[in-house]
Amino acid sequence: MNETICALATSPGGAIGIIRISGPQALEILSRVFRGKGDAQTFSANTIHYGHIVEYDAVSQHHVPIDEVMVSVFRAPYSYTGEDSAEICCHGSRYILNKVLALLIEKGCRQAGPGEFTQRAYLNGKMDLSQAEAVADLIASTNKATHQMAMSQLRGHFSSQLAQLREQLLKLTSLLELELDFSDHEDLEFADRSELLELTKTIDHQITSLATSFETGQALKQGIPVAIVGKTNVGKSTLLNRLLKDDRAIVSDIHGTTRDTIEDTIDINGITFRFIDTAGIRQTTDEIEQIGISRTYAAIDKARIILWLIDAAPTSEEIHEMRERCNDKSLIIIQNKIDKNPNIPEGTIAISAKFGTNLNELESAIYEAANIPTLQGNDVIVTNARHYDALTRAHSHLQRVLDGMAQNISGDLLSEDLRLTLDTLAEITGGQITPNEVLGNIFKNFCVGK
Amino acid sequence: MNETICALATSPGGAIGIIRISGPQALEILSRVFRGKGDAQTFSANTIHYGHIVEYDAVSQHHVPIDEVMVSVFRAPYSYTGEDSAEICCHGSRYILNKVLALLIEKGCRQAGPGEFTQRAYLNGKMDLSQAEAVADLIASTNKATHQMAMSQLRGHFSSQLAQLREQLLKLTSLLELELDFSDHEDLEFADRSELLELTKTIDHQITSLATSFETGQALKQGIPVAIVGKTNVGKSTLLNRLLKDDRAIVSDIHGTTRDTIEDTIDINGITFRFIDTAGIRQTTDEIEQIGISRTYAAIDKARIILWLIDAAPTSEEIHEMRERCNDKSLIIIQNKIDKNPNIPEGTIAISAKFGTNLNELESAIYEAANIPTLQGNDVIVTNARHYDALTRAHSHLQRVLDGMAQNISGDLLSEDLRLTLDTLAEITGGQITPNEVLGNIFKNFCVGK
Repeated sequence: MNETICALATSPGGAIGIIRISGPQALEILSRVFRGKGDAQTFSANTIHYGHIVEYDAVSQHHVPIDEVMVSVFRAPYSYTGEDSAEICCHGSRYILNKVLALLIEKGCRQAGPGEFTQRAYLNGKMDLSQAEAVADLIASTNKATHQMAMSQLRGHFSSQLAQLREQLLKLTSLLELELDFSDHEDLEFADRSELLELTKTIDHQITSLATSFETGQALKQGIPVAIVGKTNVGKSTLLNRLLKDDRAIVSDIHGTTRDTIEDTIDINGITFRFIDTAGIRQTTDEIEQIGISRTYAAIDKARIILWLIDAAPTSEEIHEMRERCNDKSLIIIQNKIDKNPNIPEGTIAISAKFGTNLNELESAIYEAANIPTLQGNDVIVTNARHYDALTRAHSHLQRVLDGMAQNISGDLLSEDLRLTLDTLAEITGGQITPNEVLGNIFKNFCVGK
Repeated sequence: MNETICALATSPGGAIGIIRISGPQALEILSRVFRGKGDAQTFSANTIHYGHIVEYDAVSQHHVPIDEVMVSVFRAPYSYTGEDSAEICCHGSRYILNKVLALLIEKGCRQAGPGEFTQRAYLNGKMDLSQAEAVADLIASTNKATHQMAMSQLRGHFSSQLAQLREQLLKLTSLLELELDFSDHEDLEFADRSELLELTKTIDHQITSLATSFETGQALKQGIPVAIVGKTNVGKSTLLNRLLKDDRAIVSDIHGTTRDTIEDTIDINGITFRFIDTAGIRQTTDEIEQIGISRTYAAIDKARIILWLIDAAPTSEEIHEMRERCNDKSLIIIQNKIDKNPNIPEGTIAISAKFGTNLNELESAIYEAANIPTLQGNDVIVTNARHYDALTRAHSHLQRVLDGMAQNISGDLLSEDLRLTLDTLAEITGGQITPNEVLGNIFKNFCVGK
């Protein structure tokens, strides 16, 4: 934290590129390389200045400009990191950006590690750990659902739920201590115990709800796995291409911001669906027949939604077998080729993959099959394995408290497990002192420059 | 220019992304989507503000945040474009950036075309046309030479040379007019004519010098073409890989800013050398032998520097033939495999491509063979075909003036060609009214957001 760090905060290759500097020497180092109106060290907080980044040229014995820039100055503690900071807005040439970074490093900056700016923001109390993690999620967000979950977490909705839980746990602790104080009065104890039990159960329910939301969070973050199954030549490949192509049209980007093609995923109402084992579907018919039924079963096992494509009514035996295999999953039976075969078996969605008929209906069915609750802005969905782990451990500590209560164990023997519950929840926001290796693990997956 | 434009100014995919807005309604539109301390319309010029970009959500009937942002405000005429402008610094998620852009467009912005911000800067008199073109060159600059040429042009060194030429041409014109006024005094005329002729020749020499620098400019911008030739098995492929690999090591980038691999180019002292026809070299020996000598000759014709790799002393006949073929090019004869064969023919550079021996010496020889003058910060090198074209036409107009003078044609008959010379030079900086199709051609190759 004594060091001043710098990094490129934008992806190189655009019209402009932003280089960030943060740390106690940020403005001093900036003033050594920036020539504009006045000394950068005297610039007011939150102001922008035009000038040049210059470098001393030994041959001409002059300072020569590397780039014409705009410099933004922030002052501790009112900056992202909580430290003195600056942002240099350069032209987006890699050569220039590298040269400015090299110059800053020469003048005393250190190249920032992944997420180091955000780590400093956390260490300086600008945000808690779960909010810091939300920053990375927000940058990685690709659709409405992942954006909303990250935004809610960044704005502290998860943190405030955790704070409420903490308050309730502290109340529980103090009530248990009260119980000890009044342990002579046997008539009082019974009433308190049932009240305490209720309170503990409520807290545990809240912790469990949060932990349970992780499954939804994961599904939304990674995309809900969908398998397309069916006999050879039933049109699986055509359907897949149709769904993917339709999506490509829907997400057609604003000029200049085309997204990387994400293979075999589609977005429906802001949720990503991920088609699994599509390699088989894309291969030639012969190969699929060689791979056979075991591959289909494997795809079903990995999926959450199964699209069973048929071109003729299956036997009731076949339907029974498929339902068995898909027991805890959502099965959508799709009758393809309605242009050729207008007899639609009951309980199926009739489409023509070839002509794109009824695809909206199919997409609605896929969306509903995902059974994702409509998220409100303040809803908290746990998306982070670290948080899920802490919630699960907090739940098991609290379970021991509940067990102890059921066995009428005295309050002082329960307090250790209560303290563990509190500490475990505190890990999420980093309220306790967080070991360096934990911080390292959290921030290593950030991008550099954030 | 009555419209307010917006665009993503950074490459998507980084930690942060910058969206630019410029035009008469910039701050009004910003105030509709930005929630922070105070109304964006009241923000002072060159200040930065923390807040959220919000969107009205019909379901919850609330404004919901799309992103936590920093907003920079600039006011006309003290902005890049000369108009009211703002920059929104968002998290670098494509989803967020698209959403903010879509929101701005919904609120009245128009998606900017390529280079439209810079085009407005030109139209508002913030820079001339050649400076505007330098902006694109600066963004595209990949090494010291291209950076220096673009920077010099952006800082107006080319523009001020053109201004000087214009002044001299105007002086010439007024002297010719004077000559008319004093045409009765025959004794005066002769003296004036020789003076005028000298002045015209000086101006023409300057124009020709600028035009001639275009060859260097092109070579530096596109990379100086180098051909590696020699017999089969002499080590051409090993040498090529060694040169490319060495360069890869030299340009190893600062973490997080790796450059796209540019196939088969190396940088020596800030100048790019481009190996041509390397496909043949990379192919198997058999194929090369099939393709034979004609391909080698084609490569020599396209190159400016020829690396002739040998493993035994060539006959004087062979040397003579090669020198003939390379008449106006730089020929470097390289004796490979000095580890095996320490007899070094005179006038060759001895290396071992395999072990990397003497490669520094070879690179110095390549650099010297390019014969590029050492550029100073203020040196003007013409890099733009449009400028070269205008200079060439200006030269031919002025040539007619010189011819007329030689034939003692009277001043009033020369003034038309002088005016054409002036107008043609003015095309470069856009001092004259520039037709829209010319502007369109200039800015269409810019990136969006600049």
